[in-house]
Parts: sequence; structure tokens; C-alpha cells
Amino acid sequence: MVSTDTLIDFFLETREHTEAICSPLEIEDYVVQPIIDVSPPKWHLGHTTWFFEEFILKTYDKSYQIFDEDFSFVFNSYYETVGKRVVRSDRGNLSRPSVKKVYEYRNYVTQAMNKLLESNNEQTLLEVLEIGIHHEKQHQELLLTDIKYILGNNPLLPKYSDTFEEFTIEKDAQQWIGMSEGIYEIGHDSADFCFDNELGKHKVYLHKYQISNKLITNAEYIEFIKAEGYKRFDLWHAAGWDWVQQNNVNAPLYWHEIDGIWHYYNLNGLSEVDLQAPVTHISYFEAFAFAQYKECRLPTEFEWEAAQNLFNWGQRWEWTESAYLPYPNYKKADGALGEYNGKFMVNQKVLRGSSVATPINHARHTYRNFFPTDLKWQFTGIRLAK
Amino acid sequence: MVSTDTLIDFFLETREHTEAICSPLEIEDYVVQPIIDVSPPKWHLGHTTWFFEEFILKTYDKSYQIFDEDFSFVFNSYYETVGKRVVRSDRGNLSRPSVKKVYEYRNYVTQAMNKLLESNNEQTLLEVLEIGIHHEKQHQELLLTDIKYILGNNPLLPKYSDTFEEFTIEKDAQQWIGMSEGIYEIGHDSADFCFDNELGKHKVYLHKYQISNKLITNAEYIEFIKAEGYKRFDLWHAAGWDWVQQNNVNAPLYWHEIDGIWHYYNLNGLSEVDLQAPVTHISYFEAFAFAQYKECRLPTEFEWEAAQNLFNWGQRWEWTESAYLPYPNYKKADGALGEYNGKFMVNQKVLRGSSVATPINHARHTYRNFFPTDLKWQFTGIRLAK
Amino acid sequence: MVSTDTLIDFFLETREHTEAICSPLEIEDYVVQPIIDVSPPKWHLGHTTWFFEEFILKTYDKSYQIFDEDFSFVFNSYYETVGKRVVRSDRGNLSRPSVKKVYEYRNYVTQAMNKLLESNNEQTLLEVLEIGIHHEKQHQELLLTDIKYILGNNPLLPKYSDTFEEFTIEKDAQQWIGMSEGIYEIGHDSADFCFDNELGKHKVYLHKYQISNKLITNAEYIEFIKAEGYKRFDLWHAAGWDWVQQNNVNAPLYWHEIDGIWHYYNLNGLSEVDLQAPVTHISYFEAFAFAQYKECRLPTEFEWEAAQNLFNWGQRWEWTESAYLPYPNYKKADGALGEYNGKFMVNQKVLRGSSVATPINHARHTYRNFFPTDLKWQFTGIRLAK
Amino acid sequence: MVSTDTLIDFFLETREHTEAICSPLEIEDYVVQPIIDVSPPKWHLGHTTWFFEEFILKTYDKSYQIFDEDFSFVFNSYYETVGKRVVRSDRGNLSRPSVKKVYEYRNYVTQAMNKLLESNNEQTLLEVLEIGIHHEKQHQELLLTDIKYILGNNPLLPKYSDTFEEFTIEKDAQQWIGMSEGIYEIGHDSADFCFDNELGKHKVYLHKYQISNKLITNAEYIEFIKAEGYKRFDLWHAAGWDWVQQNNVNAPLYWHEIDGIWHYYNLNGLSEVDLQAPVTHISYFEAFAFAQYKECRLPTEFEWEAAQNLFNWGQRWEWTESAYLPYPNYKKADGALGEYNGKFMVNQKVLRGSSVATPINHARHTYRNFFPTDLKWQFTGIRLAK
Ligand SMILES: [Fe+3]
Ligand SMILES: [Fe+3]
Ligand SMILES: [Fe+3]
Ligand SMILES: [Fe+3]
Repeated sequence: MVSTDTLIDFFLETREHTEAICSPLEIEDYVVQPIIDVSPPKWHLGHTTWFFEEFILKTYDKSYQIFDEDFSFVFNSYYETVGKRVVRSDRGNLSRPSVKKVYEYRNYVTQAMNKLLESNNEQTLLEVLEIGIHHEKQHQELLLTDIKYILGNNPLLPKYSDTFEEFTIEKDAQQWIGMSEGIYEIGHDSADFCFDNELGKHKVYLHKYQISNKLITNAEYIEFIKAEGYKRFDLWHAAGWDWVQQNNVNAPLYWHEIDGIWHYYNLNGLSEVDLQAPVTHISYFEAFAFAQYKECRLPTEFEWEAAQNLFNWGQRWEWTESAYLPYPNYKKADGALGEYNGKFMVNQKVLRGSSVATPINHARHTYRNFFPTDLKWQFTGIRLAK
Repeated sequence: MVSTDTLIDFFLETREHTEAICSPLEIEDYVVQPIIDVSPPKWHLGHTTWFFEEFILKTYDKSYQIFDEDFSFVFNSYYETVGKRVVRSDRGNLSRPSVKKVYEYRNYVTQAMNKLLESNNEQTLLEVLEIGIHHEKQHQELLLTDIKYILGNNPLLPKYSDTFEEFTIEKDAQQWIGMSEGIYEIGHDSADFCFDNELGKHKVYLHKYQISNKLITNAEYIEFIKAEGYKRFDLWHAAGWDWVQQNNVNAPLYWHEIDGIWHYYNLNGLSEVDLQAPVTHISYFEAFAFAQYKECRLPTEFEWEAAQNLFNWGQRWEWTESAYLPYPNYKKADGALGEYNGKFMVNQKVLRGSSVATPINHARHTYRNFFPTDLKWQFTGIRLAK
Repeated sequence: MVSTDTLIDFFLETREHTEAICSPLEIEDYVVQPIIDVSPPKWHLGHTTWFFEEFILKTYDKSYQIFDEDFSFVFNSYYETVGKRVVRSDRGNLSRPSVKKVYEYRNYVTQAMNKLLESNNEQTLLEVLEIGIHHEKQHQELLLTDIKYILGNNPLLPKYSDTFEEFTIEKDAQQWIGMSEGIYEIGHDSADFCFDNELGKHKVYLHKYQISNKLITNAEYIEFIKAEGYKRFDLWHAAGWDWVQQNNVNAPLYWHEIDGIWHYYNLNGLSEVDLQAPVTHISYFEAFAFAQYKECRLPTEFEWEAAQNLFNWGQRWEWTESAYLPYPNYKKADGALGEYNGKFMVNQKVLRGSSVATPINHARHTYRNFFPTDLKWQFTGIRLAK
Repeated sequence: MVSTDTLIDFFLETREHTEAICSPLEIEDYVVQPIIDVSPPKWHLGHTTWFFEEFILKTYDKSYQIFDEDFSFVFNSYYETVGKRVVRSDRGNLSRPSVKKVYEYRNYVTQAMNKLLESNNEQTLLEVLEIGIHHEKQHQELLLTDIKYILGNNPLLPKYSDTFEEFTIEKDAQQWIGMSEGIYEIGHDSADFCFDNELGKHKVYLHKYQISNKLITNAEYIEFIKAEGYKRFDLWHAAGWDWVQQNNVNAPLYWHEIDGIWHYYNLNGLSEVDLQAPVTHISYFEAFAFAQYKECRLPTEFEWEAAQNLFNWGQRWEWTESAYLPYPNYKKADGALGEYNGKFMVNQKVLRGSSVATPINHARHTYRNFFPTDLKWQFTGIRLAK
């Protein structure tokens, strides 16, 4: 574990960075929730703050005065253990507390934490602190993807930034990295931080496989669209095919066909699709169908982890064929923190790597991200295996 | 018709009053749409402005420069004739245009109108202007009721004002006004403004009836609740009973039972229910069931209009038993303005009178308000007949 | 009121006729409920029988043994007063009781009634008996329209009969019957049977109007389709337009366009649409839009009743512009029979006349039929007014 | 592969057995579809027949006359490749073809097959024949569970049989079978029949684990109910908890609490729950929550297969923790048969073993059954691991 001072710096820096992400927003942008999966930025700001108040200040700081009794109700998320919460679909209906008040709350809690940490170095406190920081970093990524959704679904298509780099070009030639059959070790085992779902280093047996050195590009994805990939049911899971029909899906999220040319909304506004960029904002269903089209498949998360030091990753969360399941000997933490990961281990798919929206220092080769099979608003991507 | 100068004053005063209604709001309050029937205040501000731009400036002011081409799309409402519109359930997902921008839009259009009216007195223009003013007045009432909903459904229950009077006490003793059988004249026929649905003065034959001199109070309504009125299916329409079951309805909107005492949220915050106040925020279904409970009925809109000069009205929109239907010889206006009223003449009930939220000078004894049978967020009330 | 003997004959004849309607069915046809508004024929058979058991035998026949305690639960309909009922959407999931058992139930109750009526002539009994007979006659019409729906929505399009006449040709030339302004008497007042919603003969004041001598034909309706009537939102109510969009409505129910020619399923199977037949299976929304297209309107139920002896009617239930509301002095009956009509008096439209599916002797010029605005499976039709 | 003659016998015997399963039914029971997952027995009879017509007779028998062109449309299921199909939620609305006609269809196809098989022994034909037989056997199990649902959800609770044995008592003492860490071989590799999802024998690495020698009994499950297992959110997946709340789940399917004593509907009618019987009709969500309550877990399908010869199985389909995913090197078959398994490999859980409803000779230790996590109508059960 890192030193206390480093951890305090890390804490303060993380708090600041969250606010930096929001700096280009208008007040109105903080409030809306266009779909259930996207939370209002205001909520992210309050919720990450509430985490420190609930799990640290209330427990470790006897003199702490709660900022506002109602906030625990408003900014609680999935933690059934600690009381009533605003149902997720209602978050976008709350005009109050105001953005100003939420920033006051942030400031109040950050100061209280700072003061507490000067005098209290208990190991258990530091452990929760570390979780809280990483929790806030996760929400930093969600903030960016939620902001993109809020702006990218507004008919005025306002831009977020002039300089956000959504990709670097995939310029390597296609190669297949061959991996030999045998036993591999999977999971986290250094002293560094990780979430509980990565623990339990264990062996898996992998059969011979090949994995691509690069991500699928927009050019390749457009080829799939042109080949009527969205109309060939044989490429899809039954559930994926129903999803395509019901939602008239015919392209990645944010794509618009204008006079026969594919454009997309990105954080810098509307522009033509860059053909050499790695495709993004596709669901697992689409990633799977694309792989079928290429007569390949998606790697399992184990294949991905075993091979990951042989290719570049970090631009896109890479869909894997693996369902999100507990590792052998996985143990849910006690109490509210136990709700963090374990209770989502059903009907979701693992994504590996990280994305352009992932905060610095938050990526790990053992990190297990997970989403339902129909969601597209994260910076997802495709790497093939066979 | 009023004189041109008076009309210009009326226009400017109306524009100002709309903004005065919004002056206590935080920017965040302008944005949300907690249920489909409640529009964001920002939208009301833009939509009433768009009306003048679309139906007057674009037609009568050759030199007019449209403020923003996209606004016609964003602020159009039910006017299918004039192009695409943001579907009603999406209004609350739009963080842009910002509130500031919407006020600029208002100001821009008000100025342009002002300038145009100095030089152009065409009769047709003035007629549309008058409709536009009354249209904005209607939205003033909606603004207030929508703001009440937005704040009154926020878990923090913020108040809108310290001084808004939601009622005066109903202190007259209950009396039954007897009306004799015969032919009555119904409908508007003065030179003053009215909406097209009031036109077509015509005769109706009414049978002998009695109508109450006063509105039902909260005390009387609580008696209905205590008598298990919400559990006696024989008092309800079949559709009303289904609605009660599915929504667990057991009191007027905004009512909370706290330690056995009924409270309500009102524009001044949470307080105990005033027993002498006229009950409000009840649906037609509830008004009907209450009347059944009292072994009375609701008046028809014709009975109401024929007797209205014999009692006080104006605190609550009074549910009538009449369905909202065209008067004999009703004629829809041509073009987009024809969408104003006629197309809603099905499956709605007429409400007569006006409410504490109705702008001054906007009430008329021939005014026909209308809403579906399950809506409660207007300042509705109950007057019995038999 | 008719004599006791006549009433007994009427009862037996009605019971027999219900079964005659079902005689062409396969057992399987008795069971299904393809949409919520269509009940399985088996249910109609049991429900009309249960009415006599519940409201007559249980009360007037002390020695009566209930056929099966569970049937009251299965065959009850909207009568909340007399206990639990199978929710309407579940009727089609009940394979038991078997059709054979239901016929045994019918027979058992018919015999018990017959025996009771030999010895008991109480006036109150006879009154309920008369209601029960007319109730069964109403269900005879529903049986036919429900059977048409069940067979007409089966991909095999089996026919019901070789000889059922769904129409006679409308061969009179179009004429407009002029009616003068004044007071008219509306409602039932003979000694003959009527439902409670027809009672309360009363005066209405009608303004001058004209009403068509004939029903709209399929030829005229096809002209409306060809003129893009289903695509012109200005012809529709807002609610009607939404309904058209959401359900892709583009023709009457049972119509199929095959190689550019309109066909329809009728009780004799699939055939080309007869151009001279009166159009049927259209919703109120469509009737209204058609009238708008013709720059006419639908008559009110009062206009219809005042003029009805001047034209032929009886082929189609004629949509009127009137909402289904109580007549002045309407009084709901006490107890379960009070649920018969009154509780549906909201958000429905009145239809007048009768149809080719209406049993003989069941039509009256004061009869008030009613349905929601979007239903099409009855033999509905259009008569214009202006 | 088995010999041709044996296969023909197997075919005829299977055809007969399907009909024997249906012999206690009333005609009405063949028609209904109370929930989307339950198909009408009539449909199973036709669908299994259509399989032979579509994939064998049409291809291999040049002189074959199709029984009825429409049946391919009515009895097709998920095979998008071979044309339009009746959507699953509509199956219960089809009264035609009649049950009699469906039996004629069965007989016609069985005869045609019998005749064809006398003269044609092509290997490819025999391979599809074998699939068709096993397909029909799968539907035999579904027939039984669907019939149970149809009768068990009828308010009259009719019994199916007097003699169907739904269980044998779990009388062994609880023991934990210890399995050592290492590489195990998984998947089918004999010459016997298996489905494509079992192919691809491959190695997996298992860590040390223990698996129970017996299934969870009703007594143990009642203990979980009494311990408020359905009210402790910490035992459930987030999705499982939502499911419990939304559906008010509080017991296995078919259970009724009568005067404080748990009863269940079984194929012999209603009776008290047998405490020593293995619990059944629980969803994966419930199996998981129960395991959490016991501080154990469900085995993976690999753990189950590796240990299966050390315990008795066959009474209940045993929920595993494994998601239904392709084995390494899994290859979808070409054409319509390729739709058989692969397209369901997402968001479902694997069940292992077999149940009292599984036809004789249809169980295999490599068999991979699969269902969504919320379904309860199969004879599912719980075996714990740790
Ligand atoms: Fe969180
Ligand atoms: Fe408006
Ligand atoms: Fe009835
Ligand atoms: Fe099948």
C-alpha cells in the first residue's frame, strides 16, 4: 500500500480532477438524465462525496457534523445497507440541491477529510480511503461518458471541448499473436490497489488460440455495415437480433449518416468518422456479430489477460466473451462495501483494458469492467481472437 | 377588440409577468420534467416566444432574422403543421439551450415584436397577437403548476415563495341554488377575446337542478377519506377504480400523512392542511367519487355557466360532468392555429371557472378548460350539483 | 312488461339461440382470447349462465344447489360486489372448465330456472329475469364479433359460416335530411324493456342540422384511403393521430391489400371488399377523421335519435360525436346490478342503432351502446351530419 | 452411431411417447399459453412434426406432398432461416389448426418418414433424424412442464395424473465430496449422440472444492423462507432483488400457504409440501440466494461434471454458477440447424443433470441445459458447493 502522504495527495488530486472534468459544463448540463444508465453530473459530484462522508467521516471523525441529512438519501446509489435512496430513474427529476450547493458539499467534505487525515492514520481508514478514491476515479470515467451522452443527444450537438483526443490511429498492420496451450495465472496479487473482483489469483487452462494485435477500426466496421451485417440474423444471438429489431440499430451510438457519409458526434462536436480510428460505442451484441461476420470470435477475459503484454491496449474497453462471474474463492466484503461488485455478477459481460476516458493511474491489466450486453455509451471496442 | 396601444401594453406586460413568475427559480429548476404532463419552465419561456416568432415575425416582418434555426424544432409543441418537434417526454433531457440563451431569445423576440407593432397595425396581425398573448397567459398558469410539481416532488420540498396565497377560506354556509327548467344561452358572444372553443353561442335545454354555492373544503374531503372513500369501488367509475388501484391513490396530490395528521406541500412549503380551504389537486375520478359519496353529482358545464353569476368562483378549476366536445357550428381555424383546441376534443373533461394560478384578466365565465380524467397537478376543485 | 309466459318463452329461446351461435365452432375456438377486449366463447356461455344463478337462483330458489362453487369466480365479470373474479386478461388462459362442462352448467341452470319460473312469478324476480335475458342477448352480439376476431386473426382464416349476411347494399342516392331547430324529447318511456341508461326521458334543444339518409360505403372509404386520409394529421384528433402512428393503422380491421386490391375477412371467409357495402370495423377515431375529410361531422346521439325514423338503420352501430354520459336524473341501481352501466360513463363514445350481429328484438331507437374510441371489432359504421 | 433399425424404432417409439404424454388432456388444454415461456401442447405436437417435414421429408423425399403449406408458418419456432413464424406470444391465440388436424399431421408425417426410412439410409439423413428425435425428446420434457403450468395455474387446479412421481426422497445424510485441484477433461467425446454445445472435449483447471452429495430439500428451503431469506437483500444479486420486489416472490412456483402450512400443486393435484423431497421450481436467483444464506455457493458446470459420478443426480435440473457460453472451438452448424444452440449463448445459466420430466435415455452427464435466471417452471433444484 502507498504511503499516507501519497494517499492524501492522491485524494486531493482526485477530488480536483473530478471538478476539472466538469469545468466546461453549463449549470443546466449538470441536471439531466436522458436515459436511465446516464446519471446527471451533479449526482456524480454528490455521490462520490457522500461515499467519504458515509464510510469515513461518520465512522472515524467523532466531531463531524453532517452537511445535510437529506443528502444521504439523494446521493446514495446502490447501497441498500445504508438506507433509502432515490431510485435511479428519478435522478434527472431533481433540480435541488443546486449545483452550487453540491460544490459546497464537496468542499465541506474535502476539507473535513483533509483535517481528519492529518491526525488519523488508522489502517482501516486508509483502506476505505483508497477504495473511495478509486470509486471516485470510476465515476470520473462515467462523468465523461455521461456528459458525452447528454450533449451528444441534444439536438444542438454542443461540443464539450476543443481538444479532447478520443483516439490515436491504429496504424500497425494486422497480426495474429499465437498463444500456446497450458496453464496461466489470472488475477491480481501485488500490493497495489485492486477491487475485490480481481482478487483470488488462480490458474486457468487455456487451449491454443490467436489474438489480434490491434483493435477493429471504423473502416472495418463500415465494411460490416455495408455487408448488411445488421440485417443478417445468422450473425447475431437471438437476444441480440431482437434488440436490433426493436431499436432499429444500424450503427454505433452517435453515428449519423449525412448525404451518404458517416459522421459522428464526439466530444469536440460533429465530424466525419475517422476511418483509421478504433470503432467505439458498440454493444456486446454488435461486437459478437462483427466477430461472427469475420469468422472469428471475441477473446475470453482469461485469454485477454494472458496475452495483454503482447499488444497495446487502453483506447477502448474491449468486450470479451466472458460472463462476469466470481473468481474461485471470491468473498464479498461485509456490510455496505460488500455491495460494490458481487451483486452485479449475473447477466453482464466482462470488458478488459481501459479507455481514453479512464483516468490516469486507474488502468490495470487485471481490472474487470462489466456491463450489460446492450449498452453502448462507454468507449467500448473490439479485439478479435480465433 | 381592444385598441392597438392597449394591446401592445398588454403584450409587454404579459411578457414581463411570465418572467416575474420565474424570478424565484434556481437555474436548475428551469430544466427538469418529472412527469410527462409537466414541462420544464425553460421550455414554457421558449415556447411562448416561439409562438410570436413563428406566427407573427416570420409572416409580417420581412426584415426579421430568425434567432436560431434550431429553436423552432426545440420549442414547437403540438403544431404538426410547422415541422418536427421535440417529443414531449424528451423536453426534460435538454440541457441546452441554456436558460441564459432562452432569456436572450425572449428579449430578442419581444424587441422585434415591439418594433414591428410600432409600424404595423394590420387587423390579421393584431388578431394573432391577441391569441399569442392569451396563449402566453395560459402558459403562465402552467408555469406555476409545473413549478409546484417540480419543487413539490423534490425530496427537499423547497418553497417557491413566502407569500403566495393558494386559497381564501370558504366561509359561507352551504346553500343550494335552485335553477329552473328551460332554455339557456351558452357560449361567448361579446367583442372581447375568447378562444375558438367558446364560440357559437347556442341554446341548451336544462332540467330543474340545484347547484352548491360553495366549493368542497379539505374538511369535507378528509371525511370522505376517513369514510374509506378510496376503498369503496361502488363510488367509482370502473376506469377510476383501476386508476386508484394501480397508483395506490389515497389522497389529493401533495398530501402527506405525518403522525396521523394530513399535511400538504404548497408553494410556501410544507404545512398542515387547512380544513377550511377548498380542496384541490384532485382528479376528475376523485371529484366524481366524492360526489357519489355525497349522493350528489358534478354539474354539467352548461349548468355551471347558467348559474355562475349566482355564486363565487375563481379559486379552483371546477371539474364538470361534461365531456370536452365542440359546440354546435364549431369550426376549426385553418392551418397551424387550427390545432389549438379542436384536436383535443376527445376523452377529456371540461373544467369551468379559474384558479388562484390563473393570471389576472384571463378568467371568463365562458372559458372552457379541459384535462384528462386522471390528472391532479392543476388547482382543481369540486362544486356539487343535484 | 310482457306476460310471464312470454317471458319464459323468451328466456328459453334466448338460451337456445346463444348455443346456436356457437354451433359451427370447434372446441378449440371456445378457449382463446387473442386480445383483451375479445372474450373466449366459453366464457360468454358461462358468464350469461352465472348471471341467472347469481341474481335469481341464489336469491329466489331456496332449494337450489350451486353447480360448482368455483364458477362464480371464473365467470363473474365486472361485478365487484359479488366477489373475486378472473381478471379479464386471464380468461384466455383457462383451459378448464371444459366446454362440455360449461354446457352442462348451462343446461343445469336453464332447467333450474325453468322449474323455478313455473312456480314463482314475483315481480322483482321477473324484472331481474328480463335484465338477464337482455344481458344474454348483448353477449350474443359479442359472441359473434368475438368469434369473428378469433377466426379472422388466425393465419388460416377459417370461415364461420357459408350464409351469414354481413350487409345489404346501400343503394339509395345520397340525401341530406333537414331537421329544424327546437326542443326534442330523448330517452325511453314505453312499458317495454330498456336498460337504465336509456331512462329519464328528457328534453334537449337542437339547432338546425342535416343528417345523411345512408351509411358511408366501402367505396367512399377507399377514396379516403387513396386520398392519404391516414397520413393527414389535420383530419385527426391528437389522440387519434398517436393511435394511428403507434399501431400503423391504414385500413378497417380485417382488411388486407392483396396485389393492390382490398380484400377483407368476413364470416364467410376471405373475399374482395364489396364497394357498395357499408364500411365497418372502423374506430371512432377513423369515423371522426373520415367526417373531417368530407368536411362534415358525426351526429350527436340526440340528433340521431330525433331523426332516426326518417332513415334506415340497423346494419352498423353508428358512431356518434356524443360522449357516453348519464341522462338527467339518471340513477344507478342498488347493489351489483348497479354496476351494469353507470360505471362505464367516462371516456367512451355512444353508438346508436344496431348491427347485423344484433339479435332480433334487441334493437331500439333509444338504445345507447358505447365503446372506447380505438376499438374496431364491433360492426361499427359511419353516418354523416352537418 | 446406433444402427438404422434401432434408430427407426427409436423414432417410432419417440413419436408414440409424445402422444402418450398428452393422453390425459382435454382438447381445451392443448390450446392455451398462459405465459410466453409455456407453449400450447398442440404447438409442441405440431412443431416436433414440422421439424421432420422441414429438415428431412422436404429434402430427402422427392415425392413428398406437404401436408399443409400454412403449417410451416404456424409450427416454425426460432428458425429464422426457413421463413416467417408465428411470434411466440401469439401461439396461445390460435384455435386452428384443431387438435384433431394436428394429430392427422403427426400421423401423416410419421408414416411418410417410416416409408422413407425403409428405402433411404443416407448418413446425412440419419444424422438429422437423430437430431430430430432428440429434439422431440426435449419437447417431451417441455410438454410436461408446460402442462403442469397450464393446469397448475388454473383456479380449479385439475390434476394431470394419479401416478406421476415427482420425486424420490433424499434420504442420504449430508456429506461434502472433496475434489482435488488439477486439470479435468470436460465435454462429450463418445460416438453416442450429443448436441453441438457439448462437443469440443477440452481441459479445464479446477481449484480444490467440495460438492454436496445431495439436493436441497423442501425442509431446508422452508427454513430459508422462515429466516426471511426473501427479505434480506444482501443474499441476492441486484437483478435478483429487483425481480423479487417486482414480482412479490416469496416461495417456489406452485406453492400456496394455506392456514400456515405450505402446500403445492403437483401433477397429482394439490397436497402438502413433502419436507424430504428435493425442492423444485426455483429460479437461478433463488438458488443463488439460498446458497448465500448457507454461506456456500453453486458449483460451476465444470465442477459438476468433474464430480458427477460421485453422487446421484437426475431428479432435478441443477442450477450452476456457469453462464451458458461456447466451449473452446465450438462451431455453429451451417444453415437452420445452426440456430439450435449457439444463438442462445448469452445471458443464460447452465443447468446440469436431468429431471423427473426428462425422457428415459435422454440424460447425459455432459448435457448442457440452459435457461434465463428468472424462470421457475422447469423441475429445477439446488446442489451446493464450497
Ligand atoms: Fe458509485
Ligand atoms: Fe402552447
Ligand atoms: Fe356481462
Ligand atoms: Fe424446438
